[in-house]
Amino acid sequence: MSIPATCPLCDSDGGTLIWSGAKLRVIRAQEAGFPGFYRVVWTAHVAEFSDLSAADRSLCMEAVTVVERVLREQLSPTKINLAALGNMVAHLHWHVIARYDWDSHFPAPIWAGAQRGRDEQRESELVQRLPQVDAALVAALNTWAA
Amino acid sequence: MSIPATCPLCDSDGGTLIWSGAKLRVIRAQEAGFPGFYRVVWTAHVAEFSDLSAADRSLCMEAVTVVERVLREQLSPTKINLAALGNMVAHLHWHVIARYDWDSHFPAPIWAGAQRGRDEQRESELVQRLPQVDAALVAALNTWAA
Repeated sequence: MSIPATCPLCDSDGGTLIWSGAKLRVIRAQEAGFPGFYRVVWTAHVAEFSDLSAADRSLCMEAVTVVERVLREQLSPTKINLAALGNMVAHLHWHVIARYDWDSHFPAPIWAGAQRGRDEQRESELVQRLPQVDAALVAALNTWAA
Repeated sequence: MSIPATCPLCDSDGGTLIWSGAKLRVIRAQEAGFPGFYRVVWTAHVAEFSDLSAADRSLCMEAVTVVERVLREQLSPTKINLAALGNMVAHLHWHVIARYDWDSHFPAPIWAGAQRGRDEQRESELVQRLPQVDAALVAALNTWAA
């Protein structure tokens, strides 16, 4: 399996590194307007979810589930959005995004056009909670991986 | 758990029904411009992936994997896109979408703005293969569920 010289998820963490395990890592994305946005990045360079073995698929989605649950508990989002797209970076990574009915795009996907302006006050409140979310993620992922 | 009276995935198949199992079904979506677009719909009305038990999460993602593999084999897409969003219809369903470097939105998500016009010739070629894809899905899902 050749690793493209330019894969940004091979060459760097791809965001703020929150937790790193044997086969995957969790990073916090920095996408304007969506503070509660994390990614589960598979360490090996595989393009598609179905490239993984059954055991690895289960491991991957259980990590996604741990992240989803922590976001639900810590941030009480209106909805969680999960996606593995990889059209731009074909290295398996799962977006785990806390969405709110007041965010700029809801109920559209974050990749669609904005539905309204950003609520900087509410965004700021979320940003202030991120250190606690990060810490809860580390604790939950350590417990899960133990 | 209350079932909203208006949930379209409780009230109808939500697309062309391809296969139905004990806990989930596979439908073919009809989204203009993206012929190779299927959905795995969880039968019970749950909003979030992490609402499922571990066994059900595994079952759900293995069904997604079966669909993904059939699309890869039958349609040789540039990339598979997977997503569980549910902002509009908060009833767990996974989008499994065959993407092509020539499609109107690639490499952007299908929900973003178009990058170019639609290639009706190539779309038509895909549409002609859908009966074979549907049959391959039924065969693969029957084998998987057996």
